[in-house]
Amino acid sequence: MSESFDQINPPPRLLMGPGPINADPRVLRAMSAQLVGQYDPAMTSYMNETMALYRQIFETQNQWTLLIDGTSRAGIESVLVSALEPGDKVLVPVFGRFGHLLTEIAHRCGAEVHTLDVEWGQVFTPDQIEDAIKTIRPKMLAVVQGDTATTMLQPLEELGAICQRYDVLLYSDATASIVGNAFKADEWGLDAVSVGLQKCLGGPSGSAPITLSDRFVDVINQRRHIEAGIRDAHHQDSQGQIIRSNYFDLPMILDYWGEERLNHHTEASSMLYCARECARIVLQEGLENTIARHKLNGDAMRAGAEGLNLKLFGDQANKMNNVLGVYIPEGVDGEAVRQSMLLDFGIEIGTSFGHLKGKIWRIGTMGYNARKDAVLTTLSALENVLRRMGHKLPQGEGIDRAMAVYNGEAS
Amino acid sequence: MSESFDQINPPPRLLMGPGPINADPRVLRAMSAQLVGQYDPAMTSYMNETMALYRQIFETQNQWTLLIDGTSRAGIESVLVSALEPGDKVLVPVFGRFGHLLTEIAHRCGAEVHTLDVEWGQVFTPDQIEDAIKTIRPKMLAVVQGDTATTMLQPLEELGAICQRYDVLLYSDATASIVGNAFKADEWGLDAVSVGLQKCLGGPSGSAPITLSDRFVDVINQRRHIEAGIRDAHHQDSQGQIIRSNYFDLPMILDYWGEERLNHHTEASSMLYCARECARIVLQEGLENTIARHKLNGDAMRAGAEGLNLKLFGDQANKMNNVLGVYIPEGVDGEAVRQSMLLDFGIEIGTSFGHLKGKIWRIGTMGYNARKDAVLTTLSALENVLRRMGHKLPQGEGIDRAMAVYNGEAS
Repeated sequence: MSESFDQINPPPRLLMGPGPINADPRVLRAMSAQLVGQYDPAMTSYMNETMALYRQIFETQNQWTLLIDGTSRAGIESVLVSALEPGDKVLVPVFGRFGHLLTEIAHRCGAEVHTLDVEWGQVFTPDQIEDAIKTIRPKMLAVVQGDTATTMLQPLEELGAICQRYDVLLYSDATASIVGNAFKADEWGLDAVSVGLQKCLGGPSGSAPITLSDRFVDVINQRRHIEAGIRDAHHQDSQGQIIRSNYFDLPMILDYWGEERLNHHTEASSMLYCARECARIVLQEGLENTIARHKLNGDAMRAGAEGLNLKLFGDQANKMNNVLGVYIPEGVDGEAVRQSMLLDFGIEIGTSFGHLKGKIWRIGTMGYNARKDAVLTTLSALENVLRRMGHKLPQGEGIDRAMAVYNGEAS
Repeated sequence: MSESFDQINPPPRLLMGPGPINADPRVLRAMSAQLVGQYDPAMTSYMNETMALYRQIFETQNQWTLLIDGTSRAGIESVLVSALEPGDKVLVPVFGRFGHLLTEIAHRCGAEVHTLDVEWGQVFTPDQIEDAIKTIRPKMLAVVQGDTATTMLQPLEELGAICQRYDVLLYSDATASIVGNAFKADEWGLDAVSVGLQKCLGGPSGSAPITLSDRFVDVINQRRHIEAGIRDAHHQDSQGQIIRSNYFDLPMILDYWGEERLNHHTEASSMLYCARECARIVLQEGLENTIARHKLNGDAMRAGAEGLNLKLFGDQANKMNNVLGVYIPEGVDGEAVRQSMLLDFGIEIGTSFGHLKGKIWRIGTMGYNARKDAVLTTLSALENVLRRMGHKLPQGEGIDRAMAVYNGEAS
């Protein structure tokens, strides 16, 4: 009955899909560091350093910048369930699958969810969003910055001022876009931001950095309740409705990351080491340089794809730097191409979700894989796979066009 | 403004507290394996293997044996929020802090929570629990097997039959006790079990293995709702109340781990590698042998502590093998001892929670640290620290008594 298995030995893959992508080897090494105790001075220092590093990643002065122990959607749920009480109104502009995810989670919090919709492949204008806010008067505007399902990047620059004007909390999930595209939490007036590690930050999924403005913290602190097992005489609960989740109760998580160090969960130390290293690597390269690298390699991949006679998907003026949508050519079996890329060449490219499934591929240039050799290797393999599947394309044109981008002769 | 920090370099610590403890180096190495895509055949195989391995750890045939991506309490919350609808009755026998945690989480699910209480350091008889079930008629009995706050182990053997008799779901969190003490999910009639890696499984916190009986899965499937962004025409929602959490929605998580592989979160691959290796190591040693090793080293630590003239805490007949409570001697500053152990000797022992804080220390012998050299190193350091703090104790007696246990001359 008993089954045994060998030690972990994953096949070598070049992950050029929409994420997860290959982790930076330095990040993997950081995770193999030995543990220390939960309240060891070394551990609490690492927690504080991680807060400081992610303040730089988010371009914020927010004190409350920390990790949620779970995948990206754990960060999303912690923000929504802590802020939204049953009956609260939330407005979600939906331009892809992850907009649906925000509505789904907000709905489970008992919120009254209003959506704005746009054709997949497009984004919203600030006016469209302001008009909806005027009508709905939500407590919160929740919008993803980049939706990997469509590769689109929603401009956020003007939304903070709009939200200020109508006293609305502005929350964005930037999992797909962070450090591959500009993101300025304070300058843009964000109240809450959540991300994951598995895209341009170059780590595995499993830790969700978030940052919260003082205004947001005031809102959630009205729902502050201390856990029975660790409550002391001096702790007082707030008057607001108790948050529906213990694991995602941000006021309690803040008490754990703050000076009082009130026990909540046991911090996932290896994932904290990992998240810390992801940020450290980006900041060592420089945030601007990291974003520029994603733009360069994304541009090269796009030019190369056009050279392969592939048609681009979506509004190219509002595309994320780090992921590209291309239509699967007429008469080509999309899954057969992906299978050959993966099993013959060891390279993964992505399919899509919902009504785009089977219509577009998504090709990423993210984090550690936003590299010239990764882009060129992918393009030359794809040239041959497409050719063998009967797609007509000019020999070498994909590589030549990408090279032109790298040589500054095209963009 | 910008701060930069060196690469991760934790001080060497021997973690002999109540967990987390040092991770097994093989587990740390497994985490440094490179990633593959979320639906790569290699990845889905690793997921299936992890399911098979944890079936052996839990001693169950349950199909639905998988990981929740979060710390131990993420596993707890996933079970409670998926099963308990607002107004459902749950009975929680509380014999330490983690009983309080179960009540706290169940309360947030909107459940009607009933507790049984006992002095910390004791456990419940099956009769006490059956009497309460007869009166309350709960939907679920939720009980921790081992409560690290008190070091006590609640016998579960007879609870399954009682729960069957009154048609009650039996759920246990065994984070603190699993593989350090016997746990037989099927033989004992468990419907749901959750654990963490950071105790006797020898890993870091951050992944929560769970197992669910068919009866439990029937209950939660009555609340099955598919996420909007990935719903296809053939998906039908169930009639039950929607589960209040997306992240912890077990029917959706089952669809992700099952044959359909419906996308939910992006699996935390490195933590999956880690959880897989934790189980693999235990099964390589043999589950019985692993438990016996915890008993031997726990007995040696206990005998050694008595040799140090320390008084034992709690009902010794119902103590976990892997953690020991001892009273802080009269006139000795408990935190000064812990500080000297940590900062002078690099060895961590634990304080406690609630009204036991400052009254007892907790000393663990768990996972990779359930080893003779770890026990003897801790005892000889503690002998000297206690002596220097003015505690009277016979020279060498701690080591001699522990040695007697290892030599089979005492228990």
